[in-house]
This record gives sequence, C-alpha cells and structure tokens, in this order.
Amino acid sequence: MTAFEYIAQNISFLNWKKEPFGLYEPIEYTLSAGGKRLRPALAVIASDLFGGKREEVLPAALALEVFHNFTLLHDDVMDKAPVRRGRPTVHIRWNENTAILSGDQMLIEAYKLLSQLRVDIQPQVLRLFNKMATEICEGQQYDVDFETRDDITINDYLMMIRLKTSVLLANALQTGALIAGADETAQQALYEYGINIGLAFQLQDDILDVYGNPETFGKAVGGDILADKKTYMLLTAYALADNRQGAELKAILADNSMKPQAKIAAVTHIYNVLGVREKCEEVMRAYTTKALAELEKLNLPDDKLQTLTALAEHLLERKE
Amino acid sequence: MTAFEYIAQNISFLNWKKEPFGLYEPIEYTLSAGGKRLRPALAVIASDLFGGKREEVLPAALALEVFHNFTLLHDDVMDKAPVRRGRPTVHIRWNENTAILSGDQMLIEAYKLLSQLRVDIQPQVLRLFNKMATEICEGQQYDVDFETRDDITINDYLMMIRLKTSVLLANALQTGALIAGADETAQQALYEYGINIGLAFQLQDDILDVYGNPETFGKAVGGDILADKKTYMLLTAYALADNRQGAELKAILADNSMKPQAKIAAVTHIYNVLGVREKCEEVMRAYTTKALAELEKLNLPDDKLQTLTALAEHLLERKE
Repeated sequence: MTAFEYIAQNISFLNWKKEPFGLYEPIEYTLSAGGKRLRPALAVIASDLFGGKREEVLPAALALEVFHNFTLLHDDVMDKAPVRRGRPTVHIRWNENTAILSGDQMLIEAYKLLSQLRVDIQPQVLRLFNKMATEICEGQQYDVDFETRDDITINDYLMMIRLKTSVLLANALQTGALIAGADETAQQALYEYGINIGLAFQLQDDILDVYGNPETFGKAVGGDILADKKTYMLLTAYALADNRQGAELKAILADNSMKPQAKIAAVTHIYNVLGVREKCEEVMRAYTTKALAELEKLNLPDDKLQTLTALAEHLLERKE
Repeated sequence: MTAFEYIAQNISFLNWKKEPFGLYEPIEYTLSAGGKRLRPALAVIASDLFGGKREEVLPAALALEVFHNFTLLHDDVMDKAPVRRGRPTVHIRWNENTAILSGDQMLIEAYKLLSQLRVDIQPQVLRLFNKMATEICEGQQYDVDFETRDDITINDYLMMIRLKTSVLLANALQTGALIAGADETAQQALYEYGINIGLAFQLQDDILDVYGNPETFGKAVGGDILADKKTYMLLTAYALADNRQGAELKAILADNSMKPQAKIAAVTHIYNVLGVREKCEEVMRAYTTKALAELEKLNLPDDKLQTLTALAEHLLERKE
C-alpha cells in the first residue's frame, strides 16, 4: 500500500460523529474534503525509508493533516474566502463563530493525536511540532504585515513562505524519520529537503498564477496581479526593472480604472520584457537541485528514494 | 511566597517582545491584564500539598493560565464583547483577524509550556490537558446550542457549566498533584473538589446577577435576565413555577416593549415569590459541602488544607 493510500484509509477511521454535533460536524466536513494529504504521506514516506512501523508514525501523520486543515479553516475566515476545495468554506456553510471554535478544536485534536505516540519519543515530537506550529502562525502574521508594507525584499518574501509553507513539509519528513529511529543527520537532511521543495513549490505557484494554462490551473490566472500581491514574480520584476520600468509597473498595479484582463496583460508584458519567468524558474530549479542534494546525504539506495526524488522533479513540471 | 505571588512573578518573566510584533503584542496585552490567576495558583497549591517542587509544576501552571486567556480571547470575538478586565478586547483594540491568529498562537504557547515539563510525566499531563481543552470547547458549543433551544433542563445546564468552567479548575488541581507525585486517589479527590467549587462558583455568579449589590458587583445587575439567559436561576424558576407563573415569566422575558429596569424587577419578583434564590443557595451550599468532603479524602492535616478550605468557603460569601 502506498503512503497516500495508507493515509486515505486511516483518516477515514477518525470518528467525528459525536456530540455536540455543532462542534464536530464542521471538522468532519473539513477533513472529508480531501486534498492531496501530502503532509501525512511525507511523514509515512520518511518513516518507510528507515523501516519504521507505519502504525507508530500514524498518529503524528494524522496530527499534521488535522493541523494543516485547522490552518486552512482559520485562514479562510481571516481571508473571508468563500470556497475551499470546491465547497463552501465552514464560515459560509455554518458561520464565523463555528469556524473559529471548530478550528480551535481541530488544533486540540492534533495534539490529542500526538499524545497517542510512544512516550519515549513523544516529548521530542511535541517540541518539534510546537516549533513548526509557531512558525506557521508567524508566517501568517508576516504575510498580513507585508500586505501593507512597501519595502518587502525578495529575502523577506522567502523568509515568509519558508515559515508559511515549507516548515510543515519539513516537519512532516523529520518527524517521520525521528519516529522510525533515524539519526540526527538523516532527520536534518529530510528537513532541509522539505524546506527546499516547499520553496520550489511556492515559486512554481507564483509562476503559474501568471503563466498557468487557464484550463488546467485550479485558480483564475492573474489573481496575484489583480490583488497586487508581493509574490516572487513581482519582487523579482522590481529588482530587475530600471527606474522607468519600475515606475510603470507600479502605476499599472495602482490603476483601479483598468479592466482586469488589460491589467494582467500589461503586467505580464513587463514580466516578459524583464525575463521574470526565466529568473523565477532558475531559482526554483536551484531549490529543487538543493532538495535532491539533501536526499543524497541519506546514503540510501536510489530505489528507496524514488518517491521523494519524483516528488521534487514533479514540481518542475506541474501545471496545476 | 504564596502560590498567587509565585505565579504573578513568573508570568511576568514570559517574553513576548519578539517578532512579528503583530502576533505577540496582543498576547502580552491579554496576559498583562491581570485577573485572579486562580487556575495556575491552584496547580501550585495542589503541588505544595504534596511537597512538589514549584519549578517543576510551573510550566503546567503557566500553560493553564495562557490557555484560559486564549479561551477568553476567542470567546470575546465570538460574543463580540467590547471590554475585558476594564480594557478594550483584542478584536476592538486591533481587529478580528488579529484576535483569531494571536489566540491560535496562545493555544500553541500553552502546549510549548507543557513541553517544558519533565519527560516522565509529560505524556500524562498532556493527555489530561487535551481532555480538559476538548471539554471546554464542547462546553462552549453547548452554551451556544442552548441559546436557541427551549428544552434545556437543569441537568443540561449543570453539564454545560461543568464543561465550560469546572474542568479547568479541576484539571489545574489534578495536574499540580500529579506532577508532585500524589497518588491517583488524591489526584481524583482534588479533581472532584475543583469540579464542585466550579459549579458552586457559577451558581453564585447566577445569583449575584440578580441579587448582587450594584456597587460591589463587577457587572450590571440583571444582565442575564435582559439577555433571557438560561441560567440556574431561570431554569429553577421554571421548575418551581405552576402553569400560570411559568407562562407569566415567559411572557415577561419575551416582551421587548418593557423597559429594562421594569423587566428585571418583574422577573426578580417572580423569583422572590418562588423562592428561587433560596433553592439556588441550597444547591450551591451542597456543592461547597461536597468540595470540602473531597478534601478530607486527602488525609492531610487541616492547616495544610487551609487555602483550599478557605477558597471553598469564600465562595459562599463573595459579593462580586
């Protein structure tokens, strides 16, 4: 059974049919919407690498999935997002208070899952989990702060997405390895692999927002441009632009009278002239290469590493 | 140094002056507002009973205080409460998103504190903490559910306040005893003491809302009546009333044309006629007696139990 199949099966065993229904139904609703289950699968894949018993890593893997969905639930409230995975978000389907309280309970449920772990490794897993959870909240706060700041650098942005996206993937891998008994060096290599694929993943996301095929890309193309989001694309454009180009870009983004499609086209044109896409792809490839180099530190046969190698390479080609 | 002084000193050592400030400032603001610090003090008092080292119980005690303040912070968002402890609530002083995110981080901070505990008792403390935290969310959900239900019994109400108020006091006491090495029987007795003083405390709150002296009672007298809140007072009134009195009470509470003071006076009159206050005080005294009986199971000299005895007796006399 693949790690993904193992997670899909076991997540369905979690029981949310209990009272008070108003608290637990939104949790079931959120967790049953699917998604890739990438984070718990990574924990199992890392454990598999070192011959760990799947049932021993399972509580931590599920905790990561429940935690990830908790962050999405509360983020959707804060962003007033109406839809998630093709369904109304919890604060729309129920109300905001329900989304807050059921979200809080999901965070507690994640810790309940952690408390099922073997007691000899539990404190260490808990400590790493807490560090990761803190970093994710910090990343979310930086993301909010950056919206109203005009001095964000590319390094600020990378720091923010490292916290907001990468550390959860990295923690999943490290935790899986730790529970399976891998040594500190191996844990650290997997952690760094996770950080780097997370960064590559986010950069690809930023590129696809501009250059994605509207038919295969999940979201509307150009959304980041219309929201004047300080993505890697935009920050790179400002970094590459001369004074005139920078002023032009700024003026277009600030122009509220432009039609959406015209604005997207104008910004994309500047990106094309500056070679922003190529620059971004170059940096993304560098993160992928770095991720693959981390895997080599594990000194494991290539066939064992196939899933993680494929995952990193897949990032370079994904279209959605 | 008393347990209360010990907590006041140590809570001020927690460092919240770190970036991103937007995440941590609201936490500092919330925790610096004071309050009785009853929950962490109870953990220390319980540990003291069994000769526990204060620095060993401290992380758990602080975790309880941070957790308690997290629940207040998110409850205030859900209740749209403008003021807490004489200051604007976080969602007023900052905004709702800040209150959600900083609240989430406070919950994580509580777990970070727990992860500082001795590893030999950490898993057990974590398990009890998770159970308590879950019960508090469930209690909050029942409280919300009850608002729109017409069939709430006195037992439903007691179940709800047990979850919403009592289990946190009970957990504080049990956890303090556990960390100090008390046996299961002693832990359980302190847990039950906590449950019972929590219930007595809430009943006294319900009584004071009607009969409190406006000059010494912290809140406006009659607030529960105006909000048609299903308190122990109201549920007891319905239980004691004949058909005519019940219908009259219902009509008064549903009458939106009545002036607030007239409505409070009319409901209070019915309470007086039915002897609701006396019934409530009787039940409250029974919980206090039960709490004191639990203390006897500890087989400790009276002078050691003085703080906990005084706390239970104080509940019978408090005016605010």
